Amino acid sequence: MSQLEAVLAHIDADQPQALERLFALLRIESISTDPAYAESCREAAEWLVRDLSTLGIEAGTRDTPGHPMVVGHGQGPGPHLLFYGHYDVQPVDPLDLWTRPPFDPVLEEREHGPVIRARGASDDKGQLMTFIEACRAWKAVTGALPARISVLLEGEEESGSPSLVPFLQANADELKTDLALVCDTGMFDARTPMITTALRGLVGEELTITGADRDLHSGIYGSAVINPIRVLARLLAGLHDDDGRVTLPGFYDGVRDPSPELRAQWQALDFDEAAFLGDVGLSVPAGEKGYPVLEQISVRPTCEFNGIWGGYTGAGFKTVLPSQASAKVSFRLVAGQDPERIRESFRDTIRAGLPADCSVEFHPHGGAPATVLPTDDPAFQAARRALSDEWENEAVFMGMGGSIPIVGHFQNILGLNSLLIGFGLKDDNLHAPNEKYDLRSFHKGTRSWARVLAALAG
Amino acid sequence: MSQLEAVLAHIDADQPQALERLFALLRIESISTDPAYAESCREAAEWLVRDLSTLGIEAGTRDTPGHPMVVGHGQGPGPHLLFYGHYDVQPVDPLDLWTRPPFDPVLEEREHGPVIRARGASDDKGQLMTFIEACRAWKAVTGALPARISVLLEGEEESGSPSLVPFLQANADELKTDLALVCDTGMFDARTPMITTALRGLVGEELTITGADRDLHSGIYGSAVINPIRVLARLLAGLHDDDGRVTLPGFYDGVRDPSPELRAQWQALDFDEAAFLGDVGLSVPAGEKGYPVLEQISVRPTCEFNGIWGGYTGAGFKTVLPSQASAKVSFRLVAGQDPERIRESFRDTIRAGLPADCSVEFHPHGGAPATVLPTDDPAFQAARRALSDEWENEAVFMGMGGSIPIVGHFQNILGLNSLLIGFGLKDDNLHAPNEKYDLRSFHKGTRSWARVLAALAG
Repeated sequence: MSQLEAVLAHIDADQPQALERLFALLRIESISTDPAYAESCREAAEWLVRDLSTLGIEAGTRDTPGHPMVVGHGQGPGPHLLFYGHYDVQPVDPLDLWTRPPFDPVLEEREHGPVIRARGASDDKGQLMTFIEACRAWKAVTGALPARISVLLEGEEESGSPSLVPFLQANADELKTDLALVCDTGMFDARTPMITTALRGLVGEELTITGADRDLHSGIYGSAVINPIRVLARLLAGLHDDDGRVTLPGFYDGVRDPSPELRAQWQALDFDEAAFLGDVGLSVPAGEKGYPVLEQISVRPTCEFNGIWGGYTGAGFKTVLPSQASAKVSFRLVAGQDPERIRESFRDTIRAGLPADCSVEFHPHGGAPATVLPTDDPAFQAARRALSDEWENEAVFMGMGGSIPIVGHFQNILGLNSLLIGFGLKDDNLHAPNEKYDLRSFHKGTRSWARVLAALAG
Repeated sequence: MSQLEAVLAHIDADQPQALERLFALLRIESISTDPAYAESCREAAEWLVRDLSTLGIEAGTRDTPGHPMVVGHGQGPGPHLLFYGHYDVQPVDPLDLWTRPPFDPVLEEREHGPVIRARGASDDKGQLMTFIEACRAWKAVTGALPARISVLLEGEEESGSPSLVPFLQANADELKTDLALVCDTGMFDARTPMITTALRGLVGEELTITGADRDLHSGIYGSAVINPIRVLARLLAGLHDDDGRVTLPGFYDGVRDPSPELRAQWQALDFDEAAFLGDVGLSVPAGEKGYPVLEQISVRPTCEFNGIWGGYTGAGFKTVLPSQASAKVSFRLVAGQDPERIRESFRDTIRAGLPADCSVEFHPHGGAPATVLPTDDPAFQAARRALSDEWENEAVFMGMGGSIPIVGHFQNILGLNSLLIGFGLKDDNLHAPNEKYDLRSFHKGTRSWARVLAALAG
C-alpha cells in the first residue's frame, strides 16, 4: 500500500470522528454580518486554532478591527502552500423557512445519499474541514504534513471582508508562499470535479432615498409629498432594459465575449438549462437576451437587487407615507470592468434620476475586480489529474459566477495564484434556508485534498 | 350664568383631571394591527366601558372576531346622537425615531403651547376623549346628558376595520339614530375649526411576487434567475406616469373636477403650498401636474406605496437572490370611483405585467368608496355656528384627503349622516413617530363638543 493509499484508507476509517469535529464547528453561530454574533465568531476562530495545533500547525488568532483572522504555519517538504477558508457564515433569516434549527447540525438521509444539514455546512465550514481533515490524515499516517502548509482562515468573508486587505498588506512577508489553495467553490456537477479558473468581481452598494423629513399619513400628505418607495422603484426599474441588459453608462466597456474555443468547450459540457432552472421551480431564463444561461451565470456581468425595504412591512396595513426607502444592489463584474468606475457610474445614474427635494445616501459594501487564473501552470495540471483520479468524471477548468475577492487580493498583494477547488453542489442552498453539504462531498472532498497535496508535493 | 356657560367653566376647572384620565388611556398599548397587542386592545375597551358608566351611559364590550367594540347608551332629551371613535392606535415603528417612549404620555412645553406627546394622543384617543369629557361636564353641571347619546368605539380602525360592517349589520336596529358624530378629523389650521364634508375612499392591497422556489446565491443564479425585487420595482414604477397620474386602466373613470364655485371658496382660504411642503422639509409638489396641492391632497384620487420589502434588509450585505418581494399599496378614491373596480384593475395590471415564471399573491386590506355629506342640513349649520363661537375664526366646510370608511358604512347600513368634527392639527405626526395633540386642541375641543351638543339639542 502506497503512502497515499494508506492516507485515503485512514480518511475512510476516521469518517465518524471527522463528522463529529465538523458538527462541533457548525454548532458555533458565527454570523459575521450581525454584530450580535461577534463572540461566536471569536469562538469559531479559537476552535480552529485548537484544532490546527493538533496537526502540528502552530496557529493563533490575530485581532482585526472586525473578527479575528486565524493564521497557522506547519513545516513540511516541497512547495509552500497557503490554504484559505472562512469560518464565518451567512445570516439565517428567514428562520421560519428552515426545516430545523440552523445551528443544530444533523445527518439527513436523502434520496441521493446522506447530507449534512446546517448553516455553514457547505459555505464554508464543511469545505474548509475537507482540507484540514486531509492534513490530519497525512499527519496520522506519516507523522508529518505532506508539504509546507500555512493557513489563513477569515471571519468576515460573508460581510465584505473589510479587514482582509489591510491584514494581507501588513502581513505580506509572512503570507507570501508559492501557491494559494482556496476551498470555497463547487463541483461542475455531482460526478464532475472542477477547478475554478475565473471569478467574477463584485461591487456592493446600499442606497437610502429620503423624501420628507419624517413619516407622514398617506391620506393627508399622499401624492403632493414625494414617496421615496416610488422614487426607488423607478430608479431600480431603470437599471435593466427590456433585453435584460444593464443600462448604466459604460457598464459593458472592456467586456468581451468568450473565445469560440472556450464556447466550444462549454458546449461540450452539455449544460442543461432546463434542469438548472427547473431545480429552483423556473423555466424561462431571465438574463441578457442572446447569451446562454451558462454564460449568463459565469462570464457576463450582472446587476442584482439583494434587498429592499421601506415604510410599513409588518402584519396588517399602515397608511404611512414613508420618509425613506432603501435597497442593497450588487454588480458581478467580469474581466475588463473596473469596480470603482462601475460604482461611480451607478451613483451618478441614481443621483441624476433623483427628483427635486429627494436626497440619496450611499454606503459601499466591498468591491473587487474579476480574476483569471493561469490554467497552463503545472500545479493546475497536477491538481486536475489528482481530482480526476478521485471522481467518476475528468475534472474541468471552468469560470464561476460568484465572487471570491480573496483571489484578486492574493494576486495583487501577495503575487500569488490560487488553486480553487471545492466540492459544493448547486443544491447546497448557499446563503439560503436549509443549507446542506453532501456527506459524499465531505468524504470524497477530504480524499481529494489528500491526493492534491500529494500531487503538489510531488 | 347660562347652563352652557356653567358647563364650559366646569371644563376649564376640571382640566387637570381630564388630562389624567386621557393619560391613563394613552398608557394602554392598543395597537390593533399586531396580534401581540390583542390583550392591550381589550384593556383599552374595558377602560372605556368603566369610564362611560360613570357618565350614566350604560356601556359594555361586544366581542367580534377581532378586537371588541364598545357600545353604550345614555338617556337624554332631544335628538338621538351616535358618537363614534376608535380606541386602537397605529404601530410605533420605527421606534428609534421617537424622542421618548410612545406609551408614556407627557405634557411637553412647545413654542406654541403645551402638547400631549404619545401614540394615540391625537389619533384617536385624545379626540374621542374631547367628546367624553364634554358629556362628563354636562352630566356634572346638570345631572344629565344634554341629548340622548349612544356611543360606538371601535378597536380595529387602524387595521382595516374587518369586523365593523358585520357588526353594524347585525346591530343596525340598536345603532340607528338621528345623526352620527365622528371625532377623527382635524382643524383647517390652528385657529380655524372645520367640519369635514367629503372624504376620500380607500383600497388597500398587499402583493407578494414569487420567482424561484427558494432564496438563492446571487453569484450562482443571478441574472439567469428572475429577481422578484426587479419585477416588483418595474411593476410599481409603471403605476404612475411622468405627470404623476395613475396609469391603471379606468382609474379616473367617473372622477370630476371640482365646480368653479368650490374652487373659488378654496382659493379664498389662501392655502400656503410652500408652508405645507416646507413643514416636512420639501419644496416641490410631487402629485398630478395641473392640480394645486390642496386639490392633490383632498379631492384627487391617488396611488401610494406604504411599504416594500424583500431579500436581505439587515445590517451588512448578503448576496442573496430572493425568492419573494412584497409591497403594500393603497389607493385614495374620490366620488365616482368604485373600490372593487379599482382593486380589480390593479390586480389585472400587475398580473398582465408579470414575467413568465413569476407568480403573484394579493391580500386585500379594506375597501371603501368616497363619501359626500349634506352641508345644507340644519344640524350641520348649527354645529358650524357652535364651533365658530368657540374659536378665533369662522368654521369651514371642507373635503378631506384621508379615508374614514365608517362614514360610508353609517350612510349605507344605518342610513345615517355623520357630522365630522375634530381638533387635530397637521403637525400632529399622525401614523408617525412622536405623535402629539395640542393641549389647546384637547381643551377647546372639549369646550367645542359642549357647545355642539347644546346646539344640536336645540
